[in-house]
Amino acid sequence: MHTGQPPVIVLMTDFGLSDTYVGQMKGVILSIAPDARIVDLTHAVTPQNIVQGAFLLGKSTPFFPEKSIVVAVVDPGVGTSRKAIAVKTARHIFLAPDNGLLTAIFQTEEIMHCVSITNERVMLPALSSTFHGRDIFSPAAAHLASGFQLQELGEARKTSECTRIPLPSCQSQNNGSSWEGKIIYTDYFGNLITSLEYRLLDQSKQWFVGTKACQELPLSVTYADVADQQPLACTGSSGMIEIAVRNGNAAQLLNLKDGDPVTAYASPAGK
Amino acid sequence: MHTGQPPVIVLMTDFGLSDTYVGQMKGVILSIAPDARIVDLTHAVTPQNIVQGAFLLGKSTPFFPEKSIVVAVVDPGVGTSRKAIAVKTARHIFLAPDNGLLTAIFQTEEIMHCVSITNERVMLPALSSTFHGRDIFSPAAAHLASGFQLQELGEARKTSECTRIPLPSCQSQNNGSSWEGKIIYTDYFGNLITSLEYRLLDQSKQWFVGTKACQELPLSVTYADVADQQPLACTGSSGMIEIAVRNGNAAQLLNLKDGDPVTAYASPAGK
Amino acid sequence: MHTGQPPVIVLMTDFGLSDTYVGQMKGVILSIAPDARIVDLTHAVTPQNIVQGAFLLGKSTPFFPEKSIVVAVVDPGVGTSRKAIAVKTARHIFLAPDNGLLTAIFQTEEIMHCVSITNERVMLPALSSTFHGRDIFSPAAAHLASGFQLQELGEARKTSECTRIPLPSCQSQNNGSSWEGKIIYTDYFGNLITSLEYRLLDQSKQWFVGTKACQELPLSVTYADVADQQPLACTGSSGMIEIAVRNGNAAQLLNLKDGDPVTAYASPAGK
Repeated sequence: MHTGQPPVIVLMTDFGLSDTYVGQMKGVILSIAPDARIVDLTHAVTPQNIVQGAFLLGKSTPFFPEKSIVVAVVDPGVGTSRKAIAVKTARHIFLAPDNGLLTAIFQTEEIMHCVSITNERVMLPALSSTFHGRDIFSPAAAHLASGFQLQELGEARKTSECTRIPLPSCQSQNNGSSWEGKIIYTDYFGNLITSLEYRLLDQSKQWFVGTKACQELPLSVTYADVADQQPLACTGSSGMIEIAVRNGNAAQLLNLKDGDPVTAYASPAGK
Repeated sequence: MHTGQPPVIVLMTDFGLSDTYVGQMKGVILSIAPDARIVDLTHAVTPQNIVQGAFLLGKSTPFFPEKSIVVAVVDPGVGTSRKAIAVKTARHIFLAPDNGLLTAIFQTEEIMHCVSITNERVMLPALSSTFHGRDIFSPAAAHLASGFQLQELGEARKTSECTRIPLPSCQSQNNGSSWEGKIIYTDYFGNLITSLEYRLLDQSKQWFVGTKACQELPLSVTYADVADQQPLACTGSSGMIEIAVRNGNAAQLLNLKDGDPVTAYASPAGK
Repeated sequence: MHTGQPPVIVLMTDFGLSDTYVGQMKGVILSIAPDARIVDLTHAVTPQNIVQGAFLLGKSTPFFPEKSIVVAVVDPGVGTSRKAIAVKTARHIFLAPDNGLLTAIFQTEEIMHCVSITNERVMLPALSSTFHGRDIFSPAAAHLASGFQLQELGEARKTSECTRIPLPSCQSQNNGSSWEGKIIYTDYFGNLITSLEYRLLDQSKQWFVGTKACQELPLSVTYADVADQQPLACTGSSGMIEIAVRNGNAAQLLNLKDGDPVTAYASPAGK
């Protein structure tokens, strides 16, 4: 089958972990590719939230091992005529419904090949209409892990014809000395990740962040730069500016949520 | 030890993932069988709900790799005289408390051997009275993965003497042109899985599903066959009829729950 | 790289499973150590709760395979001058922030070597200030799994200089015929784990446990020793006395919580 190191299959879904759905996918994968290494990126994408899934996938891709095969399933159109695609980039292969979930991949990665997954030989014999994660994407990925070539999954598809959606990380706007953005994701700790990318800011200036809850948070380096339970802004691990509360839950304590506006200022407002 | 592909050990418990219990089980397994591949089927069986565990295990078994060793622990009688059993079927080996958790396996699989797990050499040296998942089932499974034969786990036990419990998937009734059943499981998405099996319905007819919340849902193919946020009935990935809301949570929106009655009609009620 | 069985890397964090943080750590590990076996001990340590993390780690360590590399990250001081350490014991290697998270390891294990993790060659090239679990601890652990020696991670550090914190398991007091302690952890089932260690009690006597909710619980062997929904005390799987309700949630039904006082009596109170 393959040579060298065991193939890695990364899973990202909105299936949660409370049912047996993810476990069934893993059973299918190991039935076909017994030495695949399966990594759960997350199964807690908000149900049917393709935008969030695309954002999380894009931010995590740099950390996947080379040659990883990535199965991404947030699939409100499962069982309809929406296509299933497999996309080979310079470093990875992605399998997903063609609904925009790979938008960040199309934007940032070098695309080598793209196919529609149509070859029934790489699917389970009995297809459900509601669970293509198990019946199509998992077995197709496992066949790739076992030595199948991308072209064996189905006919070529132009990447220009694949669905793209507006991503939140692009929803920031430069107004001279300030950037306008919004909160795009709230993590498990209650940290509020914004659409403002640190790398776009003029690094020679001191920046401050304002929300409706707190007007002038200096951009700190890390959580412990402020006193316990105090709010701060810092550059999060994905390179986006985030609003946090030291040893606390910013979403709850500041009463902020996804979609709320955020501004970054090159100097404190009103000064 | 073994030859060929690495042995797969599948875990299903009601232990949740918030404690270290499942992690301790995995540590024990890899201490004994370093090359075992561990798959979490789910650890979110409702605590002590043997019926639900038996249903989920039966529906997932077809997707486990051949020769998988399956550890199933929903064990309200842990530490009492209830037996621990290991059951070899044509394709798998199951280890579980003898409390009915393997009922679906006994009903649908060909049973080759069954033993009581009594050999202290396959258990941890110091047994707790509250965590046989770690102290008995995990090390016994790991010994099987390392080459032990089923017979080395303990004395033979007649499968006819093993505990069986009534399963919800059997709780449907044919009344001529209709089937009466009930909701037996609510998944993470809020989809309501019923006790009605699609394969039992006369496939030449158009079927409708009624609940106290919605009387005449035509049996659709998939979620996207209705408008956004609208209810539907379809055949779920386990072959059971389920009630869902497109891009929504049926349990919440329809205010239905496990145990509520469901009827499938061969034509719309009242027409 | 290594010889013999694949290296095991155990992860314990307070990151939860709803974000991609843990998945990113695993991607980093497998990029460097493709044949590492990753085990999740738990990712549900209460956010920033170093004391709880230290307790859970100490109680789980006996079940890790020999030569496991353990990455423990509960790290409110991430990005500050707090050190990152790696500690080799007789059986394992632990990597953690030097904030007390390894207290139980220092107390109970034989320490062979301890270093500060400072070698930038074992870290990711671009360090964030908020996610050293991904950028420092994971790649350092993976380098150890790939054959690096502990000394290559950084300069030696005296274990006597490493941070220790008071652990709840030490917070019990012997008052002649009774032991005073408190509830230190509530598990997923609602079982209340106390600071009272069974091995410290005089085994020749019958013991009873009292809380503000229930005065005289005889120390039972297991949950099923009392009637359904009744409270009991027993020795849990970590050797600590715990208070449970058979087939029920003791925390909810008895209205007890972490910090509440508990007493073990050698004979019933008032008799």
